[in-house]
Amino acid sequence: MMIIDILKEACQQVHDKTKGLAGTTIGSMQMGRGAGGDMSRRIDLIAEKTVIDVIRERGIEATIIGEECGRIEGKEGYIIIDAIDGTTNAICGIPFFCCSIAYATDFYLSAVAEAAIIDLPRGDLYYASKNKGAFLNDRRIFVKREPTSDTTIGINVSGVKPAVVERLAPIIAEATHIRQFGANALEMCFVARGFLDAYIDLRGKIRPTDVAAGYLIAKEAGAKIYSDDGSSLESNLDVKTRFSYAAVANDKIREQLASMFG
Amino acid sequence: MMIIDILKEACQQVHDKTKGLAGTTIGSMQMGRGAGGDMSRRIDLIAEKTVIDVIRERGIEATIIGEECGRIEGKEGYIIIDAIDGTTNAICGIPFFCCSIAYATDFYLSAVAEAAIIDLPRGDLYYASKNKGAFLNDRRIFVKREPTSDTTIGINVSGVKPAVVERLAPIIAEATHIRQFGANALEMCFVARGFLDAYIDLRGKIRPTDVAAGYLIAKEAGAKIYSDDGSSLESNLDVKTRFSYAAVANDKIREQLASMFG
Repeated sequence: MMIIDILKEACQQVHDKTKGLAGTTIGSMQMGRGAGGDMSRRIDLIAEKTVIDVIRERGIEATIIGEECGRIEGKEGYIIIDAIDGTTNAICGIPFFCCSIAYATDFYLSAVAEAAIIDLPRGDLYYASKNKGAFLNDRRIFVKREPTSDTTIGINVSGVKPAVVERLAPIIAEATHIRQFGANALEMCFVARGFLDAYIDLRGKIRPTDVAAGYLIAKEAGAKIYSDDGSSLESNLDVKTRFSYAAVANDKIREQLASMFG
Repeated sequence: MMIIDILKEACQQVHDKTKGLAGTTIGSMQMGRGAGGDMSRRIDLIAEKTVIDVIRERGIEATIIGEECGRIEGKEGYIIIDAIDGTTNAICGIPFFCCSIAYATDFYLSAVAEAAIIDLPRGDLYYASKNKGAFLNDRRIFVKREPTSDTTIGINVSGVKPAVVERLAPIIAEATHIRQFGANALEMCFVARGFLDAYIDLRGKIRPTDVAAGYLIAKEAGAKIYSDDGSSLESNLDVKTRFSYAAVANDKIREQLASMFG
């Protein structure tokens, strides 16, 4: 069984095992803080255990980096898990959250070689393998390569300081539509399938676990991913690492964002 | 048949007749500008015709105010229609758009007496009758009456000028989570069912057709709806009218927003 097939199977199992838990008291139960620093909910723990069980049962012995479990030492390679991305949506019942799993050959974002993300309320499965393109339910997907006069930009502004809002103000003024759905990995998939022209998160709070799978899926669909100084995004995969980034569909949008990069 | 049942039936028929049109070339076909000034798409026109047909077949002879058709003179009362709210989402396939229908006894927002909104991708039906409460699929719904330390605020910042962004900056900084899904009427329902603590649109671009049904549903669920000077929202129902507003779940959030009101 190929690694990508194991990641896809783990996504499907999370979909099956968390069905009906979103928006419920039992799914939302607080279970103490995870390794990433956020409050873990019951749905987070059920989802992460499901992923880890599939990974190990299928014989992948890589080190595991998980938002809840932290680091579980293993042999070659790394599995990076955000078993529920968009937990706030999931616990209140807003139907926009996902499971995100990546495999990296080395301890860096650019070494992510396989990725799978499942849209849990809808069951849509996004995946990519390095240099082999990005897919949604077995159909190849691409970013919006031809710019249009209408632009739809995803921006995460949750709790950002006025100075960051000021940096974003010209982008907001120029965009036709702004969106913020509340699950960063799935918003990267929305860039990958051409729904969003860009997705921007300048809060300095993104963890490698949040972005590892979305990074590869968006790249394989044709996006470019930048750090907030405008260079290509790179990061280690440490559970304590935090950064900002922007995923961009085409060069015209990159130009529109030029003033934003430090 | 009561008016509310006719509005609910019209919503259901729009759900059935537009199924499979979202995200398709045929549903997105441009059909000229509607009375509200936006480009009408094929899905908008099919949806509006469906509503008008149900309204007239069921014997409601009220004047119709529609985003596409403008004004169709009738007898007593007004039917206010935004047959597809969130058209940008609908045409690209983002699963967040709705059909919004209201009945008013007089030519003012505060005279809206019956309202129904259907979440088209999911089929959830929200409705309210004045002084009788708000419902989702026959279950009574309420806003988040008890404030929590975590706040989730919906804000429409699509294309807003830097001066408006500046007015919103303190609200953004204080909120735990910001959301912008892209269909104002459905976001009012998210306030009504306790998903959002508030929904704010200060662009000065909202039409009575966008907000008439959401206004009653949110109010009947316990929300207060303000104009951007902090007074209770009121407006005529003219298709050319434009305004800003904020729907607020409880007094604590109202206090947090105090600085924003002019």
